[in-house]
Amino acid sequence: MTIEYATRYRTASRIPADPTKPYFIEKGEGDRAHLFGDLITVYAGGEQTENTFNFFTVEGPKGDIIPAHVHADTHEVFYITQGAVRLFVEDTEGVQQEKLLTPGDFGFVPKNCKHAYRMEREHSQVVGVAAGPGGTFERFFETLGAPADALGLPREPVIPEPHKFGSVPEQFDVRFLRDHEWRTR
Amino acid sequence: MTIEYATRYRTASRIPADPTKPYFIEKGEGDRAHLFGDLITVYAGGEQTENTFNFFTVEGPKGDIIPAHVHADTHEVFYITQGAVRLFVEDTEGVQQEKLLTPGDFGFVPKNCKHAYRMEREHSQVVGVAAGPGGTFERFFETLGAPADALGLPREPVIPEPHKFGSVPEQFDVRFLRDHEWRTR
Repeated sequence: MTIEYATRYRTASRIPADPTKPYFIEKGEGDRAHLFGDLITVYAGGEQTENTFNFFTVEGPKGDIIPAHVHADTHEVFYITQGAVRLFVEDTEGVQQEKLLTPGDFGFVPKNCKHAYRMEREHSQVVGVAAGPGGTFERFFETLGAPADALGLPREPVIPEPHKFGSVPEQFDVRFLRDHEWRTR
Repeated sequence: MTIEYATRYRTASRIPADPTKPYFIEKGEGDRAHLFGDLITVYAGGEQTENTFNFFTVEGPKGDIIPAHVHADTHEVFYITQGAVRLFVEDTEGVQQEKLLTPGDFGFVPKNCKHAYRMEREHSQVVGVAAGPGGTFERFFETLGAPADALGLPREPVIPEPHKFGSVPEQFDVRFLRDHEWRTR
């Protein structure tokens, strides 16, 4: 038996609307969203944790570097579970680093550190936790992109309408940095 | 080049003492601790996240169920990355559930829900996040057990001295429940 719940985010979610209830979610069956070529799956959000943390995965094809961005109030974990992901990060003094992460490797990006990543193998997967004293931001992906019912990576990239870039990132503590250069290579 | 830092927890840690610095940790090289037959590896703690969340792994042999316990102020994630782990949980109304979790599966235990688990395959691994409004509790394992330098599972189980059970769990929001019965089987 699979139990599904109606929540503020989905008509049928594996995450209970009642945050006092324990739950299990099988691989891939969290709240899914598509953004560009990536599949984001949320397993727990701010409602479950009194806004202290969240837990999600990002899966995607081998591809281009994503746009550099920064969070003013959000610390972020990158833990690789499939494939290979190159993480680029710049500290608050402007010192840049990059590193290729493979399964079991970990990266930590404190708030106010510019960062980006590039998936370097097909169907790489990253476990993410992204939170800070201001809350959690797991619904960014489906708000900029779109909620998804199907399992698996998007068949076609989901390109946000241009007007969304003006309002959605700010709402979720994301600031994209146009023309940011990574000088690590 | 591997950079190591002196922190309040280790003379040589891959976690920077300065929480504003981004960092990478390769698989297995976080702050390690042994407790009973398990290896616990901390990749990020409360110092990194303004006390909002942590990130650690627990690896262990196929074995017995760990003692049932509960956290008054801590929500906990179980995300399986190797092997198979059976999670037992009881909600605040006394309803019990158990489920065998395999890689990619997820379990969420809200605060005040009694829980336990049993690793059902050799060298299973769980990714954990355990935090709540009162903070994070990633140093429980090394305080009840012992910090470890070596990589890999403990060669001999680390059994805490009896007096530690009287003081350490409470300090980290852990309450063991002697004689708790799982009626799910």
